[in-house]
Amino acid sequence: MCLTDAPPSGPVSSGSHPVQDQSASSPYQNVNDFISNVNRFKIIESTLREGEQFANAFFDTETKIRMQALDEFGVDYIELTSPVSSPQSYEDCKTICSLGLKTKVLTHVRCNMEDAKKAVECGVDGVDLVIGTSSFLQKYSHGKSIEMIQKTALEVIEYVKSQGVEVRFSSEDSFRSDLVDLLTLYKAVDKAGVNRVGVADTVGGATPRMVYDLIRTLRGVVSCDIETHFHDDTGCAVANAHSALEAGATHIDTSVLGIGERNGITPLGALMARMVVTAPEYVTKKYNLKALKEVEELVASAVNINIPFNNPITGFCAFTHKAGIHAKAILANPSTYEIIDPALFGLTRYISINSRITGWNAIRSRCEQLGIKMTDDEVKEVTAKIKQMADIRPLAIDDTDSILHSYHIELQKKRELQEQQA
Amino acid sequence: MCLTDAPPSGPVSSGSHPVQDQSASSPYQNVNDFISNVNRFKIIESTLREGEQFANAFFDTETKIRMQALDEFGVDYIELTSPVSSPQSYEDCKTICSLGLKTKVLTHVRCNMEDAKKAVECGVDGVDLVIGTSSFLQKYSHGKSIEMIQKTALEVIEYVKSQGVEVRFSSEDSFRSDLVDLLTLYKAVDKAGVNRVGVADTVGGATPRMVYDLIRTLRGVVSCDIETHFHDDTGCAVANAHSALEAGATHIDTSVLGIGERNGITPLGALMARMVVTAPEYVTKKYNLKALKEVEELVASAVNINIPFNNPITGFCAFTHKAGIHAKAILANPSTYEIIDPALFGLTRYISINSRITGWNAIRSRCEQLGIKMTDDEVKEVTAKIKQMADIRPLAIDDTDSILHSYHIELQKKRELQEQQA
Repeated sequence: MCLTDAPPSGPVSSGSHPVQDQSASSPYQNVNDFISNVNRFKIIESTLREGEQFANAFFDTETKIRMQALDEFGVDYIELTSPVSSPQSYEDCKTICSLGLKTKVLTHVRCNMEDAKKAVECGVDGVDLVIGTSSFLQKYSHGKSIEMIQKTALEVIEYVKSQGVEVRFSSEDSFRSDLVDLLTLYKAVDKAGVNRVGVADTVGGATPRMVYDLIRTLRGVVSCDIETHFHDDTGCAVANAHSALEAGATHIDTSVLGIGERNGITPLGALMARMVVTAPEYVTKKYNLKALKEVEELVASAVNINIPFNNPITGFCAFTHKAGIHAKAILANPSTYEIIDPALFGLTRYISINSRITGWNAIRSRCEQLGIKMTDDEVKEVTAKIKQMADIRPLAIDDTDSILHSYHIELQKKRELQEQQA
Repeated sequence: MCLTDAPPSGPVSSGSHPVQDQSASSPYQNVNDFISNVNRFKIIESTLREGEQFANAFFDTETKIRMQALDEFGVDYIELTSPVSSPQSYEDCKTICSLGLKTKVLTHVRCNMEDAKKAVECGVDGVDLVIGTSSFLQKYSHGKSIEMIQKTALEVIEYVKSQGVEVRFSSEDSFRSDLVDLLTLYKAVDKAGVNRVGVADTVGGATPRMVYDLIRTLRGVVSCDIETHFHDDTGCAVANAHSALEAGATHIDTSVLGIGERNGITPLGALMARMVVTAPEYVTKKYNLKALKEVEELVASAVNINIPFNNPITGFCAFTHKAGIHAKAILANPSTYEIIDPALFGLTRYISINSRITGWNAIRSRCEQLGIKMTDDEVKEVTAKIKQMADIRPLAIDDTDSILHSYHIELQKKRELQEQQA
């Protein structure tokens, strides 16, 4: 037997989520530092750059164009693979720059004049010049000294600025770089007038404190914007982004579902979960949160992955509560155990009492949670798919999401076919 | 075409992973605080308590007994569901206490005398007394005042100590609790001689800085151990655990794959990823890292979930690199882009060049990465399963893991059957 909240009949504003009793307080709940940018951060959506480094990403031009869903989500920038990496990347870069998107389009090249020229040719709004500064990278990847890096950087920056294009300067493996070298370089490029400098935890080993300390220091050394890029090898990519913003960073790199090299970077959805709690007014106003699930499904299809069962917000379990000591409290007041209101993302909560979630139950509950209505015939078709799946290997509860999703895609195709025939 | 590292022929010590060049340094890489416990933390494995609150967890007695794999992994404590919650929980608690495990067995009850007595009866090594202290919880869940809580707590603590059993005292929703109330309570129970106090981010909204500040303060108020419990709603459960240890916490609650209420708590595997980087000598010595994948598969089977594609260490993509600018550096020196040596966990890295990973390729590469050898017949059987799956919905790369896993389980059953017949 399952108990679900009656789905709201109209849009639910965040105002219906009760505010915490002000008479109880912990002084640690708000950082209140003047350098914190948690209430005004910007996102550089890098699914089409970092995401292309995901093991199974082979985006054709049509897929890249469909990623303009990110434009509708409300991110400030979309970043593309370097136009230098292949003739196709070059063409796609030009194509996307000509789509007239609301967001600005950036690309990411090595710090040398030829690459920069190609980028500017494509019509991008901004160019990121990347260099490896850690001793590891200098030895194994580039083999250049800091002085030479600085000289080249200043030349290229001057060129890009002369073309009226935004210029950012980033290092790789910043958290294992010599601090003095890094600050020297960044101070120089800041003086040369870059719009933004970037730091990257390329290997995914940084901790929130390390991030806070480095960004805080950098905040006092440069006056330009600060962008950050965090890999998730040690499970800290979201927390590091938050820590960076507290320390004065202005821009966070994300990709949808975090896809990228190895196990990826700060996921867009998880970052939304984190920031909608820290800065609810800003986030709910700026981003089209109800579009998150759709954007994730678009990308998951494109690279053939399943949405993790425990994905923040959109995973099967994110708003699923088990019965018992918590259920009493939840029914009385949902915010007792929920820091995020599912309605903000177009979802409802689901409370499970006693019943193992299997096959058809899972599908039905999930449809209710997602606000999906199905006819009896559709129900039968999906049930058949579940049975087929169960013959191959034991059904997993997150399979419901992938079955529902692929089912939707087929429905859409049928409808499009019908429309064409009509 | 795929390029893989030749699998190591014998055990690979962490010493074969080159140490960073000491001539380049960032002062932020090591915290060096005397209160930090990153090099001596302990784990309270809560798959059989928090994990039971996972939406799809319905552990029978046999499954709970199989969880002694956690004992072999090297955790210090296993925590069980309250023996008060059902007659079955009571019996299972007694059963597990009598298994003679290396780890200590704990349980988790509400802070009252009857519950505490039942727990002690079962033969546990330690009892955790939990109370809700936030104004939210007081209003909606318990309805008691801080004074009454304190009085009850001291009585129950005295009783448990008199029985020679470890006693811990924890609050729920600690980060939204009134700080003064919380510290008053904890100071009193510390004085009464509890072994440990615990704080919990029950709603999953805490940030690393919030965690550091609260734990650091608590560290100066109590002399006993400090345990922490972090939910992952905002993607910070791992980072918060790390931050807590830096601030002087001594114990971290985990569950395998993070399973628990909603999208769960600090996952055991992800915590290993984080701590093997921060404290490699301690972690490699204390924990049987090569057993991680097996433990995760045990739990994934028990609750019917798939291993997320981007799961730290054991997910399909964790050690998978895409070709291009990074590949040159990786081939020369793996630690250029890898902060974790996959061999520590019994895995190898996998470098993908140009080929989309589909079906059979994915299976073969994954088998190599996991060090699995298959006969031609086995290969054919698994390929057949992949084709069946592809008929239902587009294949996802993480499906390979679930197909391989269920295939292994069937093989094991066949072997057991053959042994019984022989």
